[in-house]
Amino acid sequence: MCGIVGYIGDKNVIPVLIGGLQKLEYRGYDSAGIAYLDNGKMTIYKEKGKLAELEKMVADKCAEHTIGIGHTRWATHGEPNQLNAHPHVNAAGDLAIVHNGIIENYLQLREWLTKKGISFVSETDTEIIAHLINYYLVDDLKEAVAQAISKLKGSYAIGVVCERFPNEIVAVRKDSPLVVGVGKNENLIASDIPALLEYTRNVYFLNNGEIAVVKQDSVCLYDEVLNPTSREVFTVEWDVSQAEKAGYPHFMLKEIEEQPRALAETLNPRVKDGEINFDEIGIDDAMLAGIKKITVIACGTAYHASYVGKYIIERFARVPVEVEIASEFRYKNPIINQDNFVIVVSQSGETADTIAALREAKSKGASVLAIANVVGSTIAREADKVLYTRAGLEIAVASTKAYTTQLMALYMFALKLAYAKGGITQDEYHAYVAELQKVPENAEKVIQNKELLQKFAYEHFTEHSVFYIGRGLDYAMAMEGSLKLKEISYIHSEAYAGGELKHGTIALVEEGTLVVAVLTQGDLIEKALSNVKEVTSRGAVVMVVTQEKYKDLVKDVADKIVTIPDAIDFEATITSIIPMQIFAYYMSVQKGCDVDKPRNLAKSVTVE
Amino acid sequence: MCGIVGYIGDKNVIPVLIGGLQKLEYRGYDSAGIAYLDNGKMTIYKEKGKLAELEKMVADKCAEHTIGIGHTRWATHGEPNQLNAHPHVNAAGDLAIVHNGIIENYLQLREWLTKKGISFVSETDTEIIAHLINYYLVDDLKEAVAQAISKLKGSYAIGVVCERFPNEIVAVRKDSPLVVGVGKNENLIASDIPALLEYTRNVYFLNNGEIAVVKQDSVCLYDEVLNPTSREVFTVEWDVSQAEKAGYPHFMLKEIEEQPRALAETLNPRVKDGEINFDEIGIDDAMLAGIKKITVIACGTAYHASYVGKYIIERFARVPVEVEIASEFRYKNPIINQDNFVIVVSQSGETADTIAALREAKSKGASVLAIANVVGSTIAREADKVLYTRAGLEIAVASTKAYTTQLMALYMFALKLAYAKGGITQDEYHAYVAELQKVPENAEKVIQNKELLQKFAYEHFTEHSVFYIGRGLDYAMAMEGSLKLKEISYIHSEAYAGGELKHGTIALVEEGTLVVAVLTQGDLIEKALSNVKEVTSRGAVVMVVTQEKYKDLVKDVADKIVTIPDAIDFEATITSIIPMQIFAYYMSVQKGCDVDKPRNLAKSVTVE
Repeated sequence: MCGIVGYIGDKNVIPVLIGGLQKLEYRGYDSAGIAYLDNGKMTIYKEKGKLAELEKMVADKCAEHTIGIGHTRWATHGEPNQLNAHPHVNAAGDLAIVHNGIIENYLQLREWLTKKGISFVSETDTEIIAHLINYYLVDDLKEAVAQAISKLKGSYAIGVVCERFPNEIVAVRKDSPLVVGVGKNENLIASDIPALLEYTRNVYFLNNGEIAVVKQDSVCLYDEVLNPTSREVFTVEWDVSQAEKAGYPHFMLKEIEEQPRALAETLNPRVKDGEINFDEIGIDDAMLAGIKKITVIACGTAYHASYVGKYIIERFARVPVEVEIASEFRYKNPIINQDNFVIVVSQSGETADTIAALREAKSKGASVLAIANVVGSTIAREADKVLYTRAGLEIAVASTKAYTTQLMALYMFALKLAYAKGGITQDEYHAYVAELQKVPENAEKVIQNKELLQKFAYEHFTEHSVFYIGRGLDYAMAMEGSLKLKEISYIHSEAYAGGELKHGTIALVEEGTLVVAVLTQGDLIEKALSNVKEVTSRGAVVMVVTQEKYKDLVKDVADKIVTIPDAIDFEATITSIIPMQIFAYYMSVQKGCDVDKPRNLAKSVTVE
Repeated sequence: MCGIVGYIGDKNVIPVLIGGLQKLEYRGYDSAGIAYLDNGKMTIYKEKGKLAELEKMVADKCAEHTIGIGHTRWATHGEPNQLNAHPHVNAAGDLAIVHNGIIENYLQLREWLTKKGISFVSETDTEIIAHLINYYLVDDLKEAVAQAISKLKGSYAIGVVCERFPNEIVAVRKDSPLVVGVGKNENLIASDIPALLEYTRNVYFLNNGEIAVVKQDSVCLYDEVLNPTSREVFTVEWDVSQAEKAGYPHFMLKEIEEQPRALAETLNPRVKDGEINFDEIGIDDAMLAGIKKITVIACGTAYHASYVGKYIIERFARVPVEVEIASEFRYKNPIINQDNFVIVVSQSGETADTIAALREAKSKGASVLAIANVVGSTIAREADKVLYTRAGLEIAVASTKAYTTQLMALYMFALKLAYAKGGITQDEYHAYVAELQKVPENAEKVIQNKELLQKFAYEHFTEHSVFYIGRGLDYAMAMEGSLKLKEISYIHSEAYAGGELKHGTIALVEEGTLVVAVLTQGDLIEKALSNVKEVTSRGAVVMVVTQEKYKDLVKDVADKIVTIPDAIDFEATITSIIPMQIFAYYMSVQKGCDVDKPRNLAKSVTVE
């Protein structure tokens, strides 16, 4: 995710901005830029690549600028390049903004502004905001901002500087963090605390929709309709390392909790009139209707996501799907040709085996869609089409938000394909998409319930072996739940299709063995319950993950029950992994493991 | 496998034969029969089903018969029914034989005898032997037997009684066990010791090709050309339980060591002119050439065999193969129709989930081939075609010979399909089949080396977690090797595709962790070695299973090396599982587990 910093005060703004951005480097970025008023004139420097590049560009600038904004960008719309880097400006170039988040209705707004004769220089959603604010700007910057954001759908944290209002930065946020730092003869804005700590520990956390007018000697807060708001200043006690994690003890927990936002940002901008819109990617229904068979290729967590994709695509689109481990696929002279539609899934877009598999598939004539998180990564560049997840940068090695957003991407693809293939009616399509839109809020509810999982983890962190079972979609989730536990807690866990247990593994179940049973699919719950009984009759302790509505069905066999909010069964799947992520997290914490950097593992496997 | 007993002496032969057969019931059977001379007249009773049925039939027979032979049959050729039950007789009905084993050239012999005007009443290979002996019979029964067996290819243990020679039983064996029991005023023959123990502990173990002429007061032994042979009588010290296991401490070890014979019996009768012949099954090249895609469905060990099938079919026949877990397949409304050729694999032929999957596939119009071990089982009856493995009865819960014969069946199918599809040349086809024929002797060599694995097991039986890794075919073997260990030793073991390790599981590897690396495939060995290095650099102890020819390649990274005899790489696979079976066996023995009946597991999973 991107980083924002803004400053107004008595110091030279350039080193303050660069320094603040450096404090946010840990969050990842691929371009950076700053805007400041030089003798009242808007001046902008931005560049692709490292901050050091930007620093060189501004090294010889004089020291008399005291208001400015800066940004590090982690690409979501458009390639990471100089043009797409922030800040973005209006047509006159006298108003600059930086922005985190994703504007869901940016295509509609772009069209609307284009009709008014405004032209665009970048591919970003951000640029629209600059034009929009300018469009409404008469004599009060905050009023223009308030009017502009009333048009925006999506998430945003925005900082605005304008030549015409040289003594203020206006900031606003919704569903994307922004804090105002209150200093002495200086005030700041930032997306994250670390950028501020050098100057102040006194901050306002902006509420959703709240607008801040930040001047050198004052900070005024307003609600969306510009009624003044007020509150006590919060004093940050965190050290820098804590601050990087926004106060979370680990990146993993932070990223788990970022899932509602990440899921919404991956889905919402692609929903139009209740249907999935892939215009941005260049995939339309006619193309989808021509797909005969699909091969999904991935490694690790992304392989588990692919498994879910197989279930839902086969079930609704009735297109046969083969899921392949990339490292196996590439060396087996796979049977693949132009009749195969290939999907490769990789968070980093740099997974070596997946890149090789992509090339193998392309060389045999297959058309390749990438599902990737990093814009402009190798896989994204080499695939024919790219569907980006918008998880933002994931720092913890154990993937959480990247995984759930991969699921979201696959659900979007599956539903769109199913409709194009006539596998679902338009009513079903709309209902399923509407239900997908509830996933972020359901995810939020699961996260709020995390203390229960912390308690369970406290009771079980000494286990040597843990088994995860499920059937159908629940089996796919069991695989990922098991991987989470194993990779960060070093507990040997393993997932089984419920029906396979008695073909061998049940021999390992003894008095007290912990079994996590995923039971979210109504049509399979009865069969899966009989598998649960097989293990409980051998003394296993069973923790069940189920939907609220099935709670009564499972209560007699479960020692512990974790519920997720009710949903259409096949869509409850996305939410169901979250309790397992949280459980794994607390197991690791209890064991005292290095949660974010488990031994032997790298975040992105860029070698074979 | 079938059971044989024969008696000549001063007692009523009927209860001796029935009693002897009862002692062999543990070996399984589906029909039984006896033949004896009643006032010099050959008299035969045989029946499908349990021995109790046969016992009822002969309950009122008088007590003056003192020579006879008996048999319990476990079907291999032809359904288990009254007609196919042993004993079988010549045309005149005055010569009866019982037979264990499989006559590989029985179709040719049947043809040859048919031309001579002989007609057959059963579907068995055994009946041929009766006619053949009769054909050569002039005035010396042993001479006729010697001439008959000179025509036989395959394995056999045979007992013969003839009206014209009322004072002798002639017995002979090759590659199928037969012992002669030496009593007082009575002598016996039997396929297994338990059938004799009530009468004597003094036995001759017949050598391969050796012929015994057993009279009431003498036993004479001859070699194949009827030179007399002689040796000391062996006195059996085993108790009944040991005797059932032919002196082995466990059925599992006995069955591991039966694999060379089981593999030969599965393969050799289906080889004709250097090619695989499926006339018996009703599968010809034209039918195979029409196959477009294949789905293989199974559970547990048979699922692992199916994975191997996928690799070799895709590689050589270039037909896409999907492998499905039966319990998952049946509940997911699978995409299947008349274009799918479905293979179901099950030792017992009674696996509930596999039966349901078979029915689901048939109901959707697919053609189904069963690979099963039990003749006339539900799966065998309901499939369109059946390819029987000829492993014989498997008693140990952990499958060994059933698994390797499933592999053999899949290799036969894959090679025949590949040739029918033009994926391999005739020269390659012949070479690959010839190489398959070496598998039994290669398996024998591995078994002879078992003390090394016993030693390794002794060093490692205290492990908590063990990992098995491999790539391609070696990955499929790693899965089965891991299952063997886990099901009988209760050690949590898990298999990984080598390239997947670093996507999570490698976090579990620490100083001293045992990793079993299967490295038998030359084209993947280098890549797999780098995975081995990944784990050794984290302190793992690595046991490598490789071919003799690759020993030097792996010696620097392996802590322990187990070699299998050199073979064409993709065919070395079958042999490669045997060291892992033996290792698992000794690990279980060292831990003091119930090897043959591991906790919580059933031999045949006939419920969901």
